[in-house]
Amino acid sequence: MIINSIKNEHIKTIKKLSQKKYQKKTHQYLIEGRHLVDEALKYGTPIEVLSTTATQDNYTKTQCKFTLISNQVASFLSDTMTPEGVFAVMPIFQSSWTIGNWIIFDGLQDPGNAGTILRTADFFDYQGVFFSDNSVSPYMPKLLRAAQGSNFHLQIITGNIITFLNKLRQCQIPILGTVLHHSAQNLANYHPPKPYALILGNEGQGISKPVAEFIDHNVIIPANGQAESLNVAVAAGILMYTLKININN
Amino acid sequence: MIINSIKNEHIKTIKKLSQKKYQKKTHQYLIEGRHLVDEALKYGTPIEVLSTTATQDNYTKTQCKFTLISNQVASFLSDTMTPEGVFAVMPIFQSSWTIGNWIIFDGLQDPGNAGTILRTADFFDYQGVFFSDNSVSPYMPKLLRAAQGSNFHLQIITGNIITFLNKLRQCQIPILGTVLHHSAQNLANYHPPKPYALILGNEGQGISKPVAEFIDHNVIIPANGQAESLNVAVAAGILMYTLKININN
Repeated sequence: MIINSIKNEHIKTIKKLSQKKYQKKTHQYLIEGRHLVDEALKYGTPIEVLSTTATQDNYTKTQCKFTLISNQVASFLSDTMTPEGVFAVMPIFQSSWTIGNWIIFDGLQDPGNAGTILRTADFFDYQGVFFSDNSVSPYMPKLLRAAQGSNFHLQIITGNIITFLNKLRQCQIPILGTVLHHSAQNLANYHPPKPYALILGNEGQGISKPVAEFIDHNVIIPANGQAESLNVAVAAGILMYTLKININN
Repeated sequence: MIINSIKNEHIKTIKKLSQKKYQKKTHQYLIEGRHLVDEALKYGTPIEVLSTTATQDNYTKTQCKFTLISNQVASFLSDTMTPEGVFAVMPIFQSSWTIGNWIIFDGLQDPGNAGTILRTADFFDYQGVFFSDNSVSPYMPKLLRAAQGSNFHLQIITGNIITFLNKLRQCQIPILGTVLHHSAQNLANYHPPKPYALILGNEGQGISKPVAEFIDHNVIIPANGQAESLNVAVAAGILMYTLKININN
């Protein structure tokens, strides 16, 4: 049986999973495309429902719950111009967090930036990424596309940032930030403790005041040219790379 | 007089400037928003026509050629959800290039990536960015938004990449690339010559074969985690930052 109506109740429910509100309510999110579904399968992440078009039926035997959908339904569900016709409903479970190097989002908003940072954090083997309640949801289609499956390799946590920072303090994990402060150190000469947590702020406002009070060390990337600042995903990349290099020196 | 019809010939002409084809034909492009127009004025870049809505009329006296547009026309012209009502038609002139550190795009496609790289290149005081003919146009609205005015601080050139690489060779400027090759050096330990040109490839295919033959030094960013690669704008940021640091050591 093929589902070929976008008014089908199951399809309408899946479609809503691209909204933060419904992700919170149902504890589910949607992933799209062969690459992301393959990564989920590879890392043993449980899939709740797999839905594909007829041409992608080589997936059918790998999953218990499976639905076949028409091309029209695939276009309706897709967040891209050229859907591959592969979708999976995934469960959201708050992962327990373990000690290691962490990235903390303090009100980061852009899904492209957030997903790119997940990809970079994975590349440099960070433990996980914490999303403050007022950050973008970790389960937005554009974010997951930019993350290219790195969300399955990292511990992803959402919650109250002050509570999380207090937990890090209790575990004596130093907190790094990028606030321009007279005590801020030049990244090039900064050798971080091990492990550490690095806070990344909102694209426009930076790190918020209450969060800044938790920072143990501020590091800065000095500008040479005329641009006032860097894109947050680029700054995060430079920070993560350099901290990884400098931790061993 | 306010232009309030999207069928106005002048408005229809401006609207087309967001397409590469019309940019090439007319040697003009469109910038949008107070920040970009302010940067253009600040750096003395000539504006051909300034168009704003009535609420933005503080711009009117600064320009010779000026048109007032309705909110409806502003929405039509805008590439964003919340237009500020400020647009400027800018002339495209091929800048002459001067010796310094250069970034070279070999088929780079994504306007967000390209604009972010311009912003980073400006931040680290690069001389300019060369766009190969098969790269994204430097004048796309999304690119200019991501560049945040850095396009006015850099030499921006488009053209045949092989011709440009031959010119760099004639000037004895070493060409750096990021091809995985047995001779590739770890970025952390690589000290570049001064000045140099850094090639960045296409998001999917990387650097093309004919271009790779021009590379004098390949440098790589070693991965620690499970992500196979970095986003090109993040990789570019790490490269530009580290090369700037290492050039002085």
